[in-house]
Order: sequence, then structure tokens, then C-alpha cells
Amino acid sequence: MSNGEFSYIDWLRRRTPPSPGVLVGPGDDTAVLRPPTGSLLVTTDMLLEGSCFRLAEAGPFRVGRKALAVNLSDIAAMAGVPTAAVVSVGLPREGGRELAEQLYLGMRKVADEFKVPLVGGDTNSWNGPLSISVTMLGEATSRGPVLRSGAKLGDWIMVTGPLGGSILGHHLDFMPRVREAIRLHESADLHSMIDVSDGLAKDLHHICEESSCGAVVNAEAIPISDAAKNLAMTDGISELDHALSDGEDFELVFTVSPEDGERLLSEQPVPGITVHHIGEIVATGYWIERKGQREMLEPRGYEHGI
Amino acid sequence: MSNGEFSYIDWLRRRTPPSPGVLVGPGDDTAVLRPPTGSLLVTTDMLLEGSCFRLAEAGPFRVGRKALAVNLSDIAAMAGVPTAAVVSVGLPREGGRELAEQLYLGMRKVADEFKVPLVGGDTNSWNGPLSISVTMLGEATSRGPVLRSGAKLGDWIMVTGPLGGSILGHHLDFMPRVREAIRLHESADLHSMIDVSDGLAKDLHHICEESSCGAVVNAEAIPISDAAKNLAMTDGISELDHALSDGEDFELVFTVSPEDGERLLSEQPVPGITVHHIGEIVATGYWIERKGQREMLEPRGYEHGI
Repeated sequence: MSNGEFSYIDWLRRRTPPSPGVLVGPGDDTAVLRPPTGSLLVTTDMLLEGSCFRLAEAGPFRVGRKALAVNLSDIAAMAGVPTAAVVSVGLPREGGRELAEQLYLGMRKVADEFKVPLVGGDTNSWNGPLSISVTMLGEATSRGPVLRSGAKLGDWIMVTGPLGGSILGHHLDFMPRVREAIRLHESADLHSMIDVSDGLAKDLHHICEESSCGAVVNAEAIPISDAAKNLAMTDGISELDHALSDGEDFELVFTVSPEDGERLLSEQPVPGITVHHIGEIVATGYWIERKGQREMLEPRGYEHGI
Repeated sequence: MSNGEFSYIDWLRRRTPPSPGVLVGPGDDTAVLRPPTGSLLVTTDMLLEGSCFRLAEAGPFRVGRKALAVNLSDIAAMAGVPTAAVVSVGLPREGGRELAEQLYLGMRKVADEFKVPLVGGDTNSWNGPLSISVTMLGEATSRGPVLRSGAKLGDWIMVTGPLGGSILGHHLDFMPRVREAIRLHESADLHSMIDVSDGLAKDLHHICEESSCGAVVNAEAIPISDAAKNLAMTDGISELDHALSDGEDFELVFTVSPEDGERLLSEQPVPGITVHHIGEIVATGYWIERKGQREMLEPRGYEHGI
């Protein structure tokens, strides 16, 4: 079923070269894909104008790019290989066609970077603001997917890059850590992993909940982004709080055995990122340590509203 | 990534019993599914308030049901087996929680009828109207997916049920022809198939385009629904035009060899439906025959706007 001012699917079809895993599509409403050999991964994210982004500020190209990239980040969080995406959009009636074109170009840019074919979609016009939903399919590598639920007592907690202040631009322009996650998964036995979308304090808490454990984070060890430092100078919120709670960094937080952690830290085997050791998995409680003092850490984060 | 007033995903998790094909989910942002043995099918449809439905008239339960059912119909159109669905919703801030609950119950009803687990989703609140996007995964049977592109010269064109007037209620309450499609595919060599979402005249034309052929439809043979007859009595549009162009019947139009067609017509092997022979595939042109007179048929249909 499709409607709207023009057929987005036909347009995709004309522009998307055939991809080896795509058997049929996106000409039919349903695409036919070669089945994965590993477990099938599926994730979906919706971006809504005025809530998840401001269209006038971000521009449709960056919004399209982000709509795809946040889903790639969810596949990365399992160390999976993204394989195909479908896209549904609700376009405002006024100017919908140019909007769709720029959205599509933004999606296509990041899709091409990760060799992910856009295999189908549904385009609609309405009297509401811009609404975009992307569903990303992926495949687990032969090492299996990395889950939130696998953290073990004594694990090192590690993160792939600096955190905080993404609102200054990183939340639109980040590169999902797809390749880095796969390389990490090859280099070490990743026990658990999540991407930082809601903020470190909230996302690491998801790992603790799913793994039935606690965590201690070392405040001095958290890598803080320049953006968080810049924000802290103007808004009176500490750079640490920005790093803990801002969200949409799309770095990966993962846990490994101390042995693997030490090796990753000294060898830094993954090009393009520096992994940091920011804490340990403990039996119970959720803590942050500052200058040797342990305090409770609130699992608060970004609410994805603006 | 998720936001909104409450976690739809957590809510799904509490309510959705584990399903045999689901390895992990919907606790993580990304669900892990057993890979299909046949080709992987993927389809997506977005329903938008005020454009695809009027919430006050339909009620959220029926809207939720329809959001899932239209995607099931797309899988049925390939004679596929639906295996899992993900759901993204943009909820208006006012009354979003009750709305989500009724939507979910409607989705869940039809999902349960077809044993399709809801494995993930993304819930958002915003200042816009209700927006729902469903992506349905499926698997081709061992006979392979039925495509739009397989019609052959001389094929009989057949339809699974009466058409027209769905606006009177059928567009919300239809049962997707999932089981019927699989039974038909077991009973005969289906050359091509599509579901009637845009209207017979438009959807059959998709088969002709994709199969590079023409068609002749016999006006007297088209099964016309009671709803189409009722509408024709009040709006001055003929019942035939309703049957040709109304859309959202979600019956299946398919083509088979004349031998298979004759057998299906006399044996009627699929419980719950009566298949009708409504025309033939020809080399070129797109025609309707009335009382022995052949006229051009316009591939016009429903635009999915209200």
C-alpha cells in the first residue's frame, strides 16, 4: 500500500542499484531478501519533527541521514552486520517533494557508506509534521549477537569515545560504530554492549538491569567531549553531568573480562577509536566514584524531546 | 532509542509471551530472530491520522488492528508466512497512554490470530497527530514467493472475493488473506499475485507493468460487494466503478494457467473464500469488456487519502 504525491518506492527503485542480498524489491510492496546465515536482527526507530529534531535547524538531508544512522547504531550495539532497510515517511503536504528528495539523499549517503540497500518503503502526505520511521535488518556475525544481558561480575566497563554535548551537532553527524563493533567483537569476547542514545548513566543501567548486576563508574575516567566542555562553560551544568546524561553520543559501552579489557586498552586494536576503561561490574548498586568517594548514580538521561 | 511517556517496548515485553522464533526481544532495542529457511520477506506501511484514517470515527483499537493487518496483507500477496513485526508510533501528547493501550490491543488481536510476535518498537510523544508505522517480516514457503512479475500470456485472472465499498467498514475489519494465499499456492502454480489495496483497476495494472503484459477484465464477472451496491444507490457512482476503484478490499488478485484456473473454479479448494475468474492476460493493452464490447480500462484507484 502506498500513496502520497509520488511513489517513493518507484523513485527508490530507479535510484538504488541492485544489491547482492536483494532478490526482489523495492518494486513490489514486499521485498524478497536472501535469508541470513546467522541470527536475524531487526530494529526500528521513528524520528518526529519538533520532538526528535527541528527541521528548520537541521535541514532534511541531515534528518534523513540521522534516521538511518540511529538504526545502524542499534545494529552496531549487537556487533551485527546491517543488511537492508525499509523507510516509511509522512510528509507535510506543503513542499513534500523537495523534502523527500533531501531526506532520501541523506539516507542514501549513510546507507551507501555501510552498503545497506533501501529495499522498500511507504510514502504518505498528510497535514501533520514530518514523521520518519526506519526499520533496519541485520545479521549476527558467526560469534553471535552481543546482548545487554551478558555482563559478568568483575567485568571492565569500557566506552568507544568521548561523551556529552551531542546537541551541538554530533547527534546529527555521528558515524554509527558498525565496523568498530565488529572489530571489537573479533578482538575480544564482548560480554554485553549498548549504544549511548539515552546517556551513559541511563544506558549502562539497561545493561545492569538486563544482566542483573550493579556497576561502579569512575568519574575521572569518563572521556568528555569538547562539546560537553563548551556547553559546561555556558550553561552551569558540569561537563561530567553532560557526559553522563546528554545522550545521542552513539558511542558503544561494553563489558569484557579484565584480561580482555587490559589488552584492548594497551593494544587499541580498532582503527579510528580509542577505548576507555570507565568502571567495573559489581554485584549490586549503581555507583559513581569521584576522588575515592562512592555516591549513588541516578540512571537519568536524555528524554529525546526538544 | 526510545522515548515518550512510557516505554512501549517494556510494555510489549511484559505482555508478549515468548515465541519460538524469537531468540531475544523485545527487551533490547534490537530483536534477535531465528533466520528463516526460505527467502526473507519485508514490508512496511505507515498509517497517518486524518490521511489514512479518522481516529474519532474508527477508534484506536481498529486503527491498531488495521496497521498490522495491511502489512499482513502484503505478506499474503506473496503467499508468504508472516513471522514477526515491529511497531513505531508517534502519539499525541494529550491522552497518549490510553490511545497506545487501545492501539496495542488492536494490533495484538490480529497478531495473535496469525501467531506473529511483536518483537520491538519505538514509542514517541509529540505535538503532531497519531502516526503508526509497522514493519512485517515473513518467510517464503518452499514453493517460493509469488511476485507481481510472473503473469504469462493466456493466464486466467482470478480474485478471492467481492470488491468495492470498503469505506463502509471493511477497510478496518478485513481479515488479511494469509492462510488463503498459502492454501492457493499449495493448490495451484500461482504465476503472479497482488492484494487489492489501491483498487482492482490499479493493482491489476501493477501486475501488467511488472510482467510486461496486458489484461482484459470481464465486467460481468467481477464479484461486487454488498457495500459497493449500497454505496452505488446513494452516490451515483456505479457498483462496477466502486468494485474497480475503491481499494482497501485486501482480497487477492492472481493469475494462473487456464487449466489451474478451471480446476480452482470447479474445486474451490480454499475454505472461507470463493475464487472468481474475472479475465485473461493478453499481450498488450488494458481493457474491460462489457456485453461483448471492449473498452480501455483506466488504471485509476484509491489514493489512500480521506
